[in-house]
Formats: sequence, C-alpha cells, structure tokens
Amino acid sequence: MQRFFCANQDLDESFIEAAFLHQRQLTKPEGSLGRLEEVAIRLASHQRCTQPEVVKPWISVFAADHGIVEDGVSAYPQAVTQEMVKNFSRGGAAISVLAEFSQAEFEIVDVGIKEDPAPLAHLLSARVAAGTQNFSKLPAMSEQQLFAALSVGADAAERARNAGADLFIAGEMGIGNTSSAAAMTAVLSGKAVSEVVGEGTGISFSQKKQKAQVIEQAINLHREHLTSPLRVLQYLGGFEIAAMTGAYIRCAQLGLSVVVDGVIASVAAWVGDFVSRNEQLLRCQSSEEMLDLGKYSMPETIFCTCGSCPRLVEWCFFAHLSAEPAHEVILEALGVEPMLQFEMRLGEASGAALVIPLLRQACALHNRMATFEQAGVSSAD
Amino acid sequence: MQRFFCANQDLDESFIEAAFLHQRQLTKPEGSLGRLEEVAIRLASHQRCTQPEVVKPWISVFAADHGIVEDGVSAYPQAVTQEMVKNFSRGGAAISVLAEFSQAEFEIVDVGIKEDPAPLAHLLSARVAAGTQNFSKLPAMSEQQLFAALSVGADAAERARNAGADLFIAGEMGIGNTSSAAAMTAVLSGKAVSEVVGEGTGISFSQKKQKAQVIEQAINLHREHLTSPLRVLQYLGGFEIAAMTGAYIRCAQLGLSVVVDGVIASVAAWVGDFVSRNEQLLRCQSSEEMLDLGKYSMPETIFCTCGSCPRLVEWCFFAHLSAEPAHEVILEALGVEPMLQFEMRLGEASGAALVIPLLRQACALHNRMATFEQAGVSSAD
Repeated sequence: MQRFFCANQDLDESFIEAAFLHQRQLTKPEGSLGRLEEVAIRLASHQRCTQPEVVKPWISVFAADHGIVEDGVSAYPQAVTQEMVKNFSRGGAAISVLAEFSQAEFEIVDVGIKEDPAPLAHLLSARVAAGTQNFSKLPAMSEQQLFAALSVGADAAERARNAGADLFIAGEMGIGNTSSAAAMTAVLSGKAVSEVVGEGTGISFSQKKQKAQVIEQAINLHREHLTSPLRVLQYLGGFEIAAMTGAYIRCAQLGLSVVVDGVIASVAAWVGDFVSRNEQLLRCQSSEEMLDLGKYSMPETIFCTCGSCPRLVEWCFFAHLSAEPAHEVILEALGVEPMLQFEMRLGEASGAALVIPLLRQACALHNRMATFEQAGVSSAD
Repeated sequence: MQRFFCANQDLDESFIEAAFLHQRQLTKPEGSLGRLEEVAIRLASHQRCTQPEVVKPWISVFAADHGIVEDGVSAYPQAVTQEMVKNFSRGGAAISVLAEFSQAEFEIVDVGIKEDPAPLAHLLSARVAAGTQNFSKLPAMSEQQLFAALSVGADAAERARNAGADLFIAGEMGIGNTSSAAAMTAVLSGKAVSEVVGEGTGISFSQKKQKAQVIEQAINLHREHLTSPLRVLQYLGGFEIAAMTGAYIRCAQLGLSVVVDGVIASVAAWVGDFVSRNEQLLRCQSSEEMLDLGKYSMPETIFCTCGSCPRLVEWCFFAHLSAEPAHEVILEALGVEPMLQFEMRLGEASGAALVIPLLRQACALHNRMATFEQAGVSSAD
C-alpha cells in the first residue's frame, strides 16, 4: 500500500556527487554550461543513474470550471473551458502542438468542467462536480471535493509512472483560474491583492480593478477559515488546481521528476510543498491529526509523513516566469529560479512543455561530451 | 556581383503584418505566447512566408589563436584551441553534441590556429595567419588580415545560403578571446575595463586583475588608432571575431536569419551592426571612401551602401546572456533582449545551438495551432 503515508523519495547524494564530478571532467571550463549542468545533475539524482534521459515525458492537462466567473473576472466566457478542451483533443491548441513536437504522452483530465464534454480523444473523465462554487460567496469546494480532486491528480501521477514516464508535466484549463491563483497567493504570501492580481487572459484596467475587489472581499469573507494551505486551496482554489497539487505530491513520493508550468501550476506546487514540509503536519501519524484544525478527513493516500525527506520542490523544475504578477511572488517564496522568462501567460502546460528539449539537451551534453582525458585536451593551469 | 555594394535585405512589412494578424486568430489570449510570438513573426518576415520553419540550421565555428595569451590572460594553455578543434571534429565537444541534437550542418573553420591542425573531418582551412599578434604590443592584425578574416566569414554565410540553410549560427574557439572581447567592449562602450573584464574560462581574482591591466595598457597603446569599430577589431580583435563579423554582415545582406551566441559573437555582431548603420560609411560609394581615415583598402564584397536598409540586428536573434560582464553591456548597447539567461560562458556557439528547438517550437505553434474559427472557440468579450 505504497500510497499510504508515503514519504517523498530521497535524493541519493552519491548520484549528485557522481554527476557533479562527471561534469567537471567534460571538455569545457568548469561550470561553463551554467544551468544546463544543474539540470543534468538534478535529473541524474532523480533518476538514480549516471546517464539521465528524458525519453518519455507525460503531460496531464486538468480542466475545470470556476463559479467566480459570475463576477465578471475573465475576458472570456465560461464556455471556453469546454471549447478549449475540445480543441486540445483535436490537436489545435498550443499544448497539443508542443506535446506532439516533443512526442510527449498527452491526456486531458476533466476534473469538473461545467458541462460534461462527453467522450473525446485523449480525455479522461474524473469529474468532482460541475465546476466550483463562486468563492466570493461560498467555499470553492467542500472538504470531500478537495480530497477527491487531490486524488484525481495523484492518480494521474501514478498513470504516468506506470506507463514508464520519466518526466511529469501538469497543465490546466479553467476560465477564471487566475482569480483563484491571485487569491491564494495573496493569502499565502501576505501580500496585498493589488500586488498579485493580473490581467489573466487579457482584461482591461477597470476589469482588473473589479477583479481585485472581488478577490479581496472573498478573502475577507473566508478569512477565519483560511488556517492552512489546504484550507486556502479548498476555499479559494479550483478542482484543476487541487488536482495539480495532488499530482505533484504524488510525483515527489514516487520519485518522478516534475516540470512546473506557470502561475496556476506554481500555486498548486506551493501548496504541495507546504504540505510536504510543514512540520506540524509531518509529525502527525494519522489522518485525523494531519490537519490545521484536526477536523479534516485527510486522504492518507497522498500525504507525506516523513519530517526529513526532501521538499517537494526538490523534485521540480520551474519552467518559466509568467507575466502574471503573482508568479514572481510564488517563485520567490519557494526559493526557485524559473528556466525561461518569455512573458508567457497561456497555461495549458505550454511553458513546461516548451522546456522539454532544453532538458533533453542538458542530458545529451552530460552523456555524450568527451572528457578531457578521452579527447586529449589539456586542462586548466 | 551580388557581393559588391550589397545592402542588407529589406524586411517586408506585409509579412510582419500577416504573421501578427495570424497570431491574433490562434486559439489563445492575444499575446499569451509572449516571446514565442515575436520569434515566429520575425522568422516569417525573414523568410517572406506565412509558415516559417527552421529545417536546416547551419553552424560555422571559427577557430584562431591570440598573441595576447603570452601575457597570462587565460586559465588554459594556447594548445587548447587546436585540441578543442580536434574534439569538435570527433564529436566530443558541447557544440558537436548540440549540433547533432538539432541535426544542424556543422563545420569548423580554421582562420588562424597557431599550429595547423592538418586535415580533420568537418574542418575547412582558411588560415589568415598562425594566430594574431600580441595586442599588448602590436596591432592584433594588419588591415589586409582584417579583410581576409572578414571575407572568410562572408564565405561561410554564402556556403550556408547555397546549401539551403534557413538559419545561420557562428561560434568561436580561441584561447584568449575574452580578452579581445573585453578590450573591444571597453572601447566601443566607453566603459572602464574593470567593468567589462570577466573570468573567461575561469581565472582567479588576481589573474583577472592582471588581465584587466594588460587590456588597459593595450588600449592606451593603440588609443590614437581606435577611430572606428573596424579599427577596434583590427587592433584588439581576433581572426575568429572578424570572421564572425563578416559572416553576420553577409547574412543580413543575403537575408539569412542569424542566432548570435555569447559575448564573443555579440561583440562581432556589434561591429557588424555599426558598419551597417554608420551613416558616414554608408554614404560612401567606393571602397576608398568607406573608411574612418579614408585609408583602408575596403573589401567591397561585404559592406552595405544603403542608408535606409534594416540594421544588421534586425536579422538576428540573441540566444543568451553570458556570465561574462561585457555581454550585458553589448546587448544593452544593441538594444536587444537575449532569449535565455543560463549563466553559460562556453562559447563554441553552444548557447545559440541550444535555442534551435525553441525557434522550431515557435514555428510549430504559429503554423499548426487552430484559429478561433477553425476550433469553434468563443473569443474574448
């Protein structure tokens, strides 16, 4: 029953050391491949091998709707969530093109689109509900729904692992979800909503002001319940965000490398990272104990119970810095550096998929370059 | 006689406009693919088409030695230039691995390695001399040598074009060449040597101080002759740097997209950009007139004589920001943004080769994504 009370996989220092020493022997000045060296070393440690590879990347895009769109927070109508899922399925979306480019396994997971999109190619149905509640009036979801959505994500991580994936990428589609991300970031960082709210899919200045007001009022409404990162996810999040959190947590437990996409993915990873390093949670040994208020019926299936295991972020690469202002706040809080700064703000896992070739190139350099000895090249004085 | 008095290729506004409008119709919020959209639009304008592609990238690595290494400016012995060229040839260097990864055409051009490396696979011999003079005592090269090296580069651009290349990348190998780059950057930017000198292949703090002193004294020695960017290249540069300048100038004339690598490549592009936009030069109609002092015997073959044609940098993508401090100074002076910030400092065209898949992904998105109409997706309110 590996899924129960499972700790994050350890990172074997010996593989890090071996990869680091190998990099030093390659025919280049020490450290001159910069971040590519870090990437190769980290992948070697994740894969517990000397020749890391990204042969079988896996992309799960979680889709769900958001009650908050009633309050006019998005430039696009809610129907677009479902319409875009059909577009993913037919191969016309950005993530479809990028998944094909890198020959990644690609699935769409319906965690709660308002209208069931019916059977579609690449679509898996795991509906928690027909969208979240409007979090400006009610908790976005119930405890039970939170745990169901977390489990949907954990299941995706397991499917990936069982299919032999060596890299896991989660993406999302959900009109309105930058409102959840901004609200969650404001609460978890302590920053003002105005500092973290963004233009999402492209709203006007006055709409952005309105969006910030809606979020601020919602936070005030739920304030007393926002006592842990999981509570924040429950009250202000979305099903696709919870699914990503569940997926990341499970990946770290399984020892599967993750590439985190943009602002929505990062807030999901942030919650997961909190869970995996929160001493208060970690010391608990039973599901009843594992909560802020001791009242959750926790899904034992997905939480770490090891106080000394690596943080979730140790299993993650962060693909890019999104144009959404909340993203910089999250990455700074996590203490991580994004790989790209391309001013992207699309979601769908598009930024994460984009870096697959960079990871592959880092591996190719690590595995195929000659050493000074092999090449007969003089080393530094 | 296209090579004579050839202007940089124009950028047809209609292709930029068409590509921009096409991006707006794709199923994503406007602008949400950030820099990938710019890349696709720029490639479409370069290629004068609606479906840009990078099918046949070309990499020329220019290698030459530097007299300045006598003064102890490098961590590696001079022999490494030749040793690394052999490593390139055998496939063991970073650029060999990256060229193979992206299935790029790959050639090494000997513009003046100290000892002739004799016939090697992928090596083309175009030796100007057995290395430059030590520029702390003498001009790095004569006028004739400068023009010979510029022509070697122009020839490489023509080989690429004739072979059907759709992207040109130049790289370099030359122990000591960060000293040239720092010296040239200091003079061309007006900054102090101490602000632009770096650790190159990895020298110590005290060696770096010594390197800065050598460079400063050299600049003072040649000061009165440093009257134009081409003179700066002649007195302080290297054969491989001049070859890159010639290659970039010729690419802009031929209308061939360029990806510029790190600090050495960028200083070469900077000189080329000066040449292509310097009104004083551009108004000249004969080789005799085309010079700062009116004394050069200019190679008519590679200079632009059109005052209104696009700048050289309009034909360039800048791959990454190097860890060498001079690089930021150059990119800022050119008014361009690098694609990656990976703290690389290897040269060999490694940074430029790394972005080939990013360019390809930008093209795939541009060409293969569905439009809102095709996908039946609602557009923004």
